[in-house]
Amino acid sequence: MDEFKLIQQIQRDTRTSSTGVKLGMGDDAAILEIPAGKHLVVSADMLNTGVHFPADTSPYDIGYKCMAVNLSDMAAMGATPHWALLSLSLPKSDPGWLRSFTQGIMSLAETFAVAIVGGDTTSGPLSVGLTVLGTVEPGRQLLRSGACPGDLVVVSGTLGGAARVLDLLQNDTGSGGQNIPDRLLLDRPQPRVSLGQALADYASACIDLSDGLLADLGHLIKASKCGAKLETASLPAPALLDNLDDEHRWTYQLAGGDDYELLFTLPRTHAALIGSWEERYEIRLSIIGCIEDGEDLYCTKPDGQPFQPAKTGFDHFAKKH
Amino acid sequence: MDEFKLIQQIQRDTRTSSTGVKLGMGDDAAILEIPAGKHLVVSADMLNTGVHFPADTSPYDIGYKCMAVNLSDMAAMGATPHWALLSLSLPKSDPGWLRSFTQGIMSLAETFAVAIVGGDTTSGPLSVGLTVLGTVEPGRQLLRSGACPGDLVVVSGTLGGAARVLDLLQNDTGSGGQNIPDRLLLDRPQPRVSLGQALADYASACIDLSDGLLADLGHLIKASKCGAKLETASLPAPALLDNLDDEHRWTYQLAGGDDYELLFTLPRTHAALIGSWEERYEIRLSIIGCIEDGEDLYCTKPDGQPFQPAKTGFDHFAKKH
Repeated sequence: MDEFKLIQQIQRDTRTSSTGVKLGMGDDAAILEIPAGKHLVVSADMLNTGVHFPADTSPYDIGYKCMAVNLSDMAAMGATPHWALLSLSLPKSDPGWLRSFTQGIMSLAETFAVAIVGGDTTSGPLSVGLTVLGTVEPGRQLLRSGACPGDLVVVSGTLGGAARVLDLLQNDTGSGGQNIPDRLLLDRPQPRVSLGQALADYASACIDLSDGLLADLGHLIKASKCGAKLETASLPAPALLDNLDDEHRWTYQLAGGDDYELLFTLPRTHAALIGSWEERYEIRLSIIGCIEDGEDLYCTKPDGQPFQPAKTGFDHFAKKH
Repeated sequence: MDEFKLIQQIQRDTRTSSTGVKLGMGDDAAILEIPAGKHLVVSADMLNTGVHFPADTSPYDIGYKCMAVNLSDMAAMGATPHWALLSLSLPKSDPGWLRSFTQGIMSLAETFAVAIVGGDTTSGPLSVGLTVLGTVEPGRQLLRSGACPGDLVVVSGTLGGAARVLDLLQNDTGSGGQNIPDRLLLDRPQPRVSLGQALADYASACIDLSDGLLADLGHLIKASKCGAKLETASLPAPALLDNLDDEHRWTYQLAGGDDYELLFTLPRTHAALIGSWEERYEIRLSIIGCIEDGEDLYCTKPDGQPFQPAKTGFDHFAKKH
């Protein structure tokens, strides 16, 4: 199958209609009409094999995760996603692989009514570049800045599951990954788009968790010019971490990447909303700490002593120097 | 240098102000205000080492070419570029390499007032994903469709130079690329943004030349549901092709990729404009053929006989099957 047939297959297998698509795939660029009174929100991610997903990940799950990661950025802004551009670097032309990959992409694109309006294909090492575009009402965006001392620190879902799965996979010998429980914690993060939109009028700051709780909360408090305290006893854990000792579990929860949950700060006057969001969006929300004066980020154990994990988050270049 | 310092360096070294930037780099997404009455035009490209640029290409020229290729897509739409997102996969964290690369990006970004508003960095094989966003007045976009029988086929600049440089590089032994003349034909294509905007009211169809003249004209006539005839005698050549025999030269001009010139069709009633565009934009424009009924694309030699090059254009996956 040549390049143009591959592109045709992508066009055929993807949803290309959404609000405001004046010109979709097939020309030198897409043309979109942004609804009057809305701002454009745009984010790009590049995902590489062996970095963002293990080399044995199924093409469906690679597609799914690439879309989930980008939608998670939209969620963290309180934005509504509408369109995406898909750039694919593929080692070979494999229509079956591509079909499964696009099905993974489309499972989320359909759920969130996102149209694939353009992109690029090239030969090369497996790599996926996705640009997602959405809209937000001016003034209703969620930013990393805006957290104030006294605000509650809240997180959706559970923490550390994806990193634990990754470690189990990397230490797996012989099972071919078949014996890894809860692998979907790594492969299929749930973009919290509806929650993000609901938070827009109440949360003072928001970020999605990609590098790990401490690293991403660090970005948030730096942008907000404040500090934060976390309590290990409040960190939500998936069942997969139940059999670990405390310090091992806390390390996954504080430093493990790839959870793609929303981390947000909420003025205490809105604390009562947390329960209603949990019910409406069928999602667990946990108060894990609070924003403080200063610029320190620290974590306390149930006995009141500080806890500092050996690693603090994923750094793409940390191991090279 | 860790990942976050790398990102800070990119932020510091790139232009982040342009029209409508409500929120630039540093959050989960950028927020842009699209001017009232304009449509958004968006395009994404992924460029890999060894595919889109030889492995020995300087970081400055890699940055330059990535931006040029994307701006060329905006030019082909008649759009005005404003913003870009840069996704970078890098084998190692090298601040000097990155500085030179961003200088290449910025040389064009400054010229065209394009702000880098977001993106991503990851470890992995060298690969650049660029998304460029611009605007166009509704109805003034240039499309691949719209060519009509009788229209002139016109091309900017010269053809085949980039492919010839690439062949010379690949057959180069020992000089380390130092003896290759006119290497900038490959490394620094000129995005024809102003020309594209000028064409918007007159050209019936337009595409930029990335895969080669025959391949890209093939896309244009397929979208326009018509055929086309080219004349080898009219194909513009750079001086680099002067010492080649006719068939060798024509093959580069018809099938060589990477020229990033604009190929457009023009109703004959507007033929007189060609000279004024050449003067105003200081660019060579050549009438190389005309649009015909049917769906055939063919090329005639000065003796009236047909000419068909052995290869017709670049296909990323052609060699793999």
